[in-house]
Amino acid sequence: MERGFDIVKAGHIELLVTDLGEARKFYVDILGFVVTESDRSHVYLRGLEDRQHHCLILTRSDSPGVGHFAFRVSSEAGLKAIDKLAKASGVYSRWKESGEERGQGRALLIEDQFGFPVEFYAKMASEEWLLQKFQRYRGAKVMRLDHFNIMHPDVASAYDWYVNKLGFVCTEVTETEGKKPELWAAWLRRKHTCHDIALTTGKGPRVHHAGFTVADRASIMDAADLLASSGYLKSMERGPGRHGVSNAFFLYLRDSEGNRIELYTGDYISADPDWVPLRWKLNDPQRQTFWGAPTPASWFNEAMFVRSPKNGKFQQVSLPKIKDRPDYLLNAG
Amino acid sequence: MERGFDIVKAGHIELLVTDLGEARKFYVDILGFVVTESDRSHVYLRGLEDRQHHCLILTRSDSPGVGHFAFRVSSEAGLKAIDKLAKASGVYSRWKESGEERGQGRALLIEDQFGFPVEFYAKMASEEWLLQKFQRYRGAKVMRLDHFNIMHPDVASAYDWYVNKLGFVCTEVTETEGKKPELWAAWLRRKHTCHDIALTTGKGPRVHHAGFTVADRASIMDAADLLASSGYLKSMERGPGRHGVSNAFFLYLRDSEGNRIELYTGDYISADPDWVPLRWKLNDPQRQTFWGAPTPASWFNEAMFVRSPKNGKFQQVSLPKIKDRPDYLLNAG
Amino acid sequence: MERGFDIVKAGHIELLVTDLGEARKFYVDILGFVVTESDRSHVYLRGLEDRQHHCLILTRSDSPGVGHFAFRVSSEAGLKAIDKLAKASGVYSRWKESGEERGQGRALLIEDQFGFPVEFYAKMASEEWLLQKFQRYRGAKVMRLDHFNIMHPDVASAYDWYVNKLGFVCTEVTETEGKKPELWAAWLRRKHTCHDIALTTGKGPRVHHAGFTVADRASIMDAADLLASSGYLKSMERGPGRHGVSNAFFLYLRDSEGNRIELYTGDYISADPDWVPLRWKLNDPQRQTFWGAPTPASWFNEAMFVRSPKNGKFQQVSLPKIKDRPDYLLNAG
Amino acid sequence: MERGFDIVKAGHIELLVTDLGEARKFYVDILGFVVTESDRSHVYLRGLEDRQHHCLILTRSDSPGVGHFAFRVSSEAGLKAIDKLAKASGVYSRWKESGEERGQGRALLIEDQFGFPVEFYAKMASEEWLLQKFQRYRGAKVMRLDHFNIMHPDVASAYDWYVNKLGFVCTEVTETEGKKPELWAAWLRRKHTCHDIALTTGKGPRVHHAGFTVADRASIMDAADLLASSGYLKSMERGPGRHGVSNAFFLYLRDSEGNRIELYTGDYISADPDWVPLRWKLNDPQRQTFWGAPTPASWFNEAMFVRSPKNGKFQQVSLPKIKDRPDYLLNAG
Repeated sequence: MERGFDIVKAGHIELLVTDLGEARKFYVDILGFVVTESDRSHVYLRGLEDRQHHCLILTRSDSPGVGHFAFRVSSEAGLKAIDKLAKASGVYSRWKESGEERGQGRALLIEDQFGFPVEFYAKMASEEWLLQKFQRYRGAKVMRLDHFNIMHPDVASAYDWYVNKLGFVCTEVTETEGKKPELWAAWLRRKHTCHDIALTTGKGPRVHHAGFTVADRASIMDAADLLASSGYLKSMERGPGRHGVSNAFFLYLRDSEGNRIELYTGDYISADPDWVPLRWKLNDPQRQTFWGAPTPASWFNEAMFVRSPKNGKFQQVSLPKIKDRPDYLLNAG
Repeated sequence: MERGFDIVKAGHIELLVTDLGEARKFYVDILGFVVTESDRSHVYLRGLEDRQHHCLILTRSDSPGVGHFAFRVSSEAGLKAIDKLAKASGVYSRWKESGEERGQGRALLIEDQFGFPVEFYAKMASEEWLLQKFQRYRGAKVMRLDHFNIMHPDVASAYDWYVNKLGFVCTEVTETEGKKPELWAAWLRRKHTCHDIALTTGKGPRVHHAGFTVADRASIMDAADLLASSGYLKSMERGPGRHGVSNAFFLYLRDSEGNRIELYTGDYISADPDWVPLRWKLNDPQRQTFWGAPTPASWFNEAMFVRSPKNGKFQQVSLPKIKDRPDYLLNAG
Repeated sequence: MERGFDIVKAGHIELLVTDLGEARKFYVDILGFVVTESDRSHVYLRGLEDRQHHCLILTRSDSPGVGHFAFRVSSEAGLKAIDKLAKASGVYSRWKESGEERGQGRALLIEDQFGFPVEFYAKMASEEWLLQKFQRYRGAKVMRLDHFNIMHPDVASAYDWYVNKLGFVCTEVTETEGKKPELWAAWLRRKHTCHDIALTTGKGPRVHHAGFTVADRASIMDAADLLASSGYLKSMERGPGRHGVSNAFFLYLRDSEGNRIELYTGDYISADPDWVPLRWKLNDPQRQTFWGAPTPASWFNEAMFVRSPKNGKFQQVSLPKIKDRPDYLLNAG
Repeated sequence: MERGFDIVKAGHIELLVTDLGEARKFYVDILGFVVTESDRSHVYLRGLEDRQHHCLILTRSDSPGVGHFAFRVSSEAGLKAIDKLAKASGVYSRWKESGEERGQGRALLIEDQFGFPVEFYAKMASEEWLLQKFQRYRGAKVMRLDHFNIMHPDVASAYDWYVNKLGFVCTEVTETEGKKPELWAAWLRRKHTCHDIALTTGKGPRVHHAGFTVADRASIMDAADLLASSGYLKSMERGPGRHGVSNAFFLYLRDSEGNRIELYTGDYISADPDWVPLRWKLNDPQRQTFWGAPTPASWFNEAMFVRSPKNGKFQQVSLPKIKDRPDYLLNAG
């Protein structure tokens, strides 16, 4: 089913930070996100390719983590249909009025069955397109948000929710080893790229990272050089390298509070209606890094906690049903 | 309207050549297209990112030009709906049986109101994905078909057909100078990129070029070096350079019979439901080449003739209604 | 002879400008040269790879052009030997005291037999190396000076002076067409690259351009994008493209007063003692641009006038002995 | 002293392999070295930028390792002067007649004081230059040999030999930590790049690697992709990444027998006569990899054994005087 309540794409993410000034320095001064607007508690950021108000919100908080992540839907009717689905599924939902989040129209915020804070919105203020204002390019020259990657204790159920209920298309999967392989991770898309959201087996609900697109491999190399010479050596957790899954070129970064983003470029167009998911085995050494480099254990063990839409508290996490982990971890923790 | 009879993307193009061996040398040995299969009169080619049987057919013919170009549709139902629309619009259509074109399911071939041979198909044989078989990369390392660009004597009517009837979304337009600007060219998409088809004012029906995606700017530079040292200096008609429209990096090539393709990389994702077309003026020197280099007159004056689906003869061409031409042509013809 | 009075490399050039503020904007704000120091009438600039005080001086003047260009020599003894050679050759010379040019030790300034103002120096103040201060990279990310290219009415005599007297090594030559080919241009080096100075047949004494090295092709593309979106579209005179001679990737720029520099990358190491000059014919279409693009006539006809070390006036120019010009000029003037 | 017996550059290296067919596959079919000629026991290879007969010899042997490494000297007189120095220094030397090594003139082979087999030669047959034959580019598109890196038990003595006797120039050093820093490694050059030979403290005499230049970072990324998809995943030992020392971008490879080469690009021009060596501390995490990635222990512990010019046997190795090792090793062995 290609319809998907007209969900269009991964839209934006709200990262929580205790030191808004330091976060602004990292995301704006170093990485080159563009400030659309800001107030005492928030900075609203967009990429050079964005025509929308924001793809990243930095929000002052007592603790780092994720406030919510959001998908853009093509119409108000789509929002209502999702609200109806949520109610029918026993999922908590509430409407955010237009402007409750700066630049955004009326939006539906849900706490899904697994505790994730997910927002759906149809309207957002348009902003000046900077794609050809090359004099505005800075740092990692971030273009736009590409995807979310979440750590989930029950990937099979999440897959059912995203694919069979919300209409996402599966492009790639990872399965456990052995005679009865189980679904260990899935890459799902609405827009015509590799993914808008990836579901990975792990303690959750947590958000592993948000992936932001850059123009090319050179941008990632240049960002690594810049971070390394600007006092942000420790921010580079993994990469640069090429992924097996997605084929993209990547660099994973942690901000000073541990929030994680990915610089990402070079996946593929997945518009074909007969797309059969690509299948990877959990222990394939080229699955995560096509060049075979081991993945640091921190990358597997650590992720961002999420805040409950119901009560504003950080969610408790549960262990995953599937215990399998790749055996090529660098310093297994 | 986002539905568009579930048209998914620009799918493939059939180029007519009198010397199939020479054409194979150019497209396969030099540019690196992958041969899926061939017979005495055809070579079926795909790109490294394609999972489908072909995106380019070379067909032996008495004269160069275009046999047809084709859009992929997501289902048989979509094909039938287009057939119904064609009949209601007084447009010639006929069904091609499964296998009439190698690797392709049942397809609908129309001669549109303007004489263009346009095919719609829903099914195509799947082929091995070579995206991560880097040992297969050759020449220009062509990834996939991106778009068609057609020379049209009546862009306004074509715009109505593609946008209002077939459901394409307009991403960018060029307008004539003066107080009452007219639509001079339009970039239209179904997949979430800048375009699947561009309509340009000119003598038609003719196909100006088919655009094929490569991975990055370096691939285009490398292709230019390779062509220049392999006896194909004259094949490079325009570029490398950056476009204003689409923001893509490009190189235009002519095969030995004058058929034109574009190597293309680096446009943008256009999934937003509220996308407002970007507007360019005809004489903006940065519209075609962002760096301001003049465009050779051959690029404006020459294009590929198309064969009628009705009778197999090449179509007569008409002069466009709008006479305006950019005033920055290099050697205006 | 490899000794060459221990001449080490092309060292720096003094460009004359009438509007020092506008020049500073172009070279510093846009192109990213680093300011070492400045006063009311001069800005001393270096590249990111330079460990020396300056490779480019902008000097306020009544008229644009070149004050002098300079070669670095490895010792004071080398300077004295050149002075001796100058006197023996009837060439005007005078000593500049240490500090007469900021940051520079005692230097020998000559007006060569052809009227060119050429300086030789052995000592220059050391400055902080910014090669790994990636946070300082801006604009075209200029690394260092690579070479000078001069328009000369008598290339054969200049060749004799530079090669047989000063000890330069010839890496490439261009010869006229016909049965008795004459030397039309020569590329000469002291450091182990393609050249430190190129001699080209033309009205002279004039300096055609100074070539500055950037890290890679991407830096040149990025510079073109930046110039095109910053109001400097007209500054791009020729390129980007690849040279036949030198194999380098290039972009030629004119500042607002017409002074010309080249962004240059990717030539070769020429250290071999048995290096035989590569030979090009004047009309080879790949000689200047390997991809065959025609060269604008302005590039051939225009060059920078030079100031006499004797009297500070701009030199009169003479027509070259050899009248041959390439026949692929774009708009021959 | 810049003279250095007119030593010009690192010239070539002879790698010993037990399986010449497999080695040829790796170096020629995968990495793209060009075969100049071959016989039953040798393959003579050059890079795309080479105008000389070979920069790499593969020689059939009972055991892998290094037969000899060689520096090019500008004249026969230089060879004789080195022979005189060798004799005066009590160093073993013998002359190889012209043609004893294919394509090479008379050469001097020494076993230096530390057991290394070092050759000096002044003449080598010229070969077709392939730099602009882009149709010949394959695999990693290797351009030329850049440098040798040797593991030495006594770097201070080796430094004295190379700098004070043979006339190399020191561009960078690594020193041990502590109040009385000792010389731990040195980068020395004759040609105007970062180095022709690096001396590193370790068990020796062994050769750590030979560094070969490629055109740019993209070539290294592409090589990594190619190796990873061609069954050579295990060949990639370290990288891609950027060095602190030399600033070059790198990828270290092991052939199937453990011989190690480096793909290398992007260092600097070091021609300045007043060059002061850049100084690094042994434990600086950015010294080896500017981006801070740890270095695999194998990279530190393993190196190529060398064959004695005197008796053709592999040399015994000694422990270094200085025991310090960087503390950032990945899996210290």
